[in-house]
Amino acid sequence: MREHFEAFSRQAANHVPLSPLSFLERTASVFPDRIAVIYNDRQLTWSDVQERVRRLASSLRSRGVGQGDTVSVLAANTPELFELHYAVPLAGAVLNTINIRLEAETVAYILDHSDARLIIADTAFSGVVSEAFTINGKNIPVIDIDDPDGPGGQRIGEADYSELIEEGDPAFAWRGPEDEWQALALNYTSGTSGRPKGVVYHHRGAYLMAMGTPIAWELPRHPVYLYTVPMFHCNGWCHAWTMTLMAGTIVCIRQVSGKAVFDLIGKLGITHLGGAPIVLSMLVNTPEADRKPLGGPVRIMTAGAPPPAAVLAATKALGFEVMQVYGLTETYGHVVQCL
Amino acid sequence: MREHFEAFSRQAANHVPLSPLSFLERTASVFPDRIAVIYNDRQLTWSDVQERVRRLASSLRSRGVGQGDTVSVLAANTPELFELHYAVPLAGAVLNTINIRLEAETVAYILDHSDARLIIADTAFSGVVSEAFTINGKNIPVIDIDDPDGPGGQRIGEADYSELIEEGDPAFAWRGPEDEWQALALNYTSGTSGRPKGVVYHHRGAYLMAMGTPIAWELPRHPVYLYTVPMFHCNGWCHAWTMTLMAGTIVCIRQVSGKAVFDLIGKLGITHLGGAPIVLSMLVNTPEADRKPLGGPVRIMTAGAPPPAAVLAATKALGFEVMQVYGLTETYGHVVQCL
Repeated sequence: MREHFEAFSRQAANHVPLSPLSFLERTASVFPDRIAVIYNDRQLTWSDVQERVRRLASSLRSRGVGQGDTVSVLAANTPELFELHYAVPLAGAVLNTINIRLEAETVAYILDHSDARLIIADTAFSGVVSEAFTINGKNIPVIDIDDPDGPGGQRIGEADYSELIEEGDPAFAWRGPEDEWQALALNYTSGTSGRPKGVVYHHRGAYLMAMGTPIAWELPRHPVYLYTVPMFHCNGWCHAWTMTLMAGTIVCIRQVSGKAVFDLIGKLGITHLGGAPIVLSMLVNTPEADRKPLGGPVRIMTAGAPPPAAVLAATKALGFEVMQVYGLTETYGHVVQCL
Repeated sequence: MREHFEAFSRQAANHVPLSPLSFLERTASVFPDRIAVIYNDRQLTWSDVQERVRRLASSLRSRGVGQGDTVSVLAANTPELFELHYAVPLAGAVLNTINIRLEAETVAYILDHSDARLIIADTAFSGVVSEAFTINGKNIPVIDIDDPDGPGGQRIGEADYSELIEEGDPAFAWRGPEDEWQALALNYTSGTSGRPKGVVYHHRGAYLMAMGTPIAWELPRHPVYLYTVPMFHCNGWCHAWTMTLMAGTIVCIRQVSGKAVFDLIGKLGITHLGGAPIVLSMLVNTPEADRKPLGGPVRIMTAGAPPPAAVLAATKALGFEVMQVYGLTETYGHVVQCL
């Protein structure tokens, strides 16, 4: 029988690769009309998101982005950045989200080191991108994200993000990678001890990370998730993929403040959010007049150094349920949790 | 950059294989003292289970069971059958659980076709095993499970299950498969259209199935799970592995009846169970004197043909929350769910 089992194993290895792209395919199919993304006055259903992602991937391909190319992104936590978590890998390329707080010199280094073929940048950061080009002597094609709710900034791109949507093919084939070990994202560490170091995420790893999070965090179906964690940071702890898997609603926020978080909890019924301990402090220190009562339990995943006991207690007293986790860019974000 | 990403993918593929064996390793490490299994007056912690599994695997090896060998089991839903879901693969072997309702001729066929090297059988089924040997002319070594809570039966084995535990090495190395596609289980279909057909499960598939179930069923940590689904059936829908992942408590039951289920819900706080629609009917038709009030929500996963609307409504009225699923032996059990 041993040789039969061995033949079976060799045959089984011709498998469908694990990829987070499958989450959007499934959720858009099962819950097409549920709200996927909310950002101020903008709302997209899962069906909308899938169509926009197809169009974007098609446009990226038309602009010469192919298998194994790096697409760098400098963007705030807006729906565009969420969509790019699917569109770039659907085009076969590798998503390189860059910390928007970095100075031009480091951005120049990353754009150079990552061999970026295209940059998609919110106009709020067009100054940094231009300066980076001056430093590294490159002239990489740029696509602007012109967010009407952003602070504004100069357009420096050859096209606007909305043009990529318009010109794209809504019937672009939904196809995962041929190899689950294929690169999906390239994330640079903050470089506290020298130059930032590039960490590559593969499709399989992101899939497994996204599958593990609901189990550890006991996520129900359809969480209403406030995206306070920057998506440039470990792909927002891979929650862009996790929340798709759970058919949640992702609420985007550009500028996090205690008042804004309480307002969104009151208005949209946020059930989950993540954030560094500073987010907890922000909530605790929100003036009472700016606080809204929580409609139900709101669960916060906080990562990094343990929050001070007083902050934890005060957060709990407000009705939040806190889970503390820890991780690294090298581990797709959080990998240990405090039980 | 493409060649760097490709080199990365080749390197990444030297991975730790996915295997449900990792669930027990983690849960026994994180929750050693939590109750893992309850069966009448017997209780085992996760630490107990891991030690017993190590001992069993070691004993199986000593008795000549090796990599890729089939170990067949004819057992009721007792703790032994649960433990064998880990001990047999830890020994590198393949677990072949046999439907205890089959007649001797089919059992003879399965023992022959699966090339069983060892049979572990509850003494309640020793008659069938002996008869099967007469039919297929084999004389495969047998280990008896002598369940004091069972109906009894003749011992035909060269040793008793408890001897395997005693003689085994509690320090037997915890080692997953070298290849995640390695065979883990061999399950025969019921053979309604001819001879039963063998379906092989690999470690990767069982791992992914176990990871998907908590997401679909919204399982919290530490469910108290009543094992009404026969573990010989698609490895009890892979719940033996899922409940370990969730650090649940598995409550074994040998003979399912409405009264017994209500008693266990009242006594142990069962939160989850699974079963064919017949289990729902059984609950609904339990005489009122034998019903206990549910302490909290009890969630039932029911698989197979959709239960009649009246049965569903009556089950809900009793306080149960029903999720209907469907699957096949060929798909590791349930793969679609009614949302």
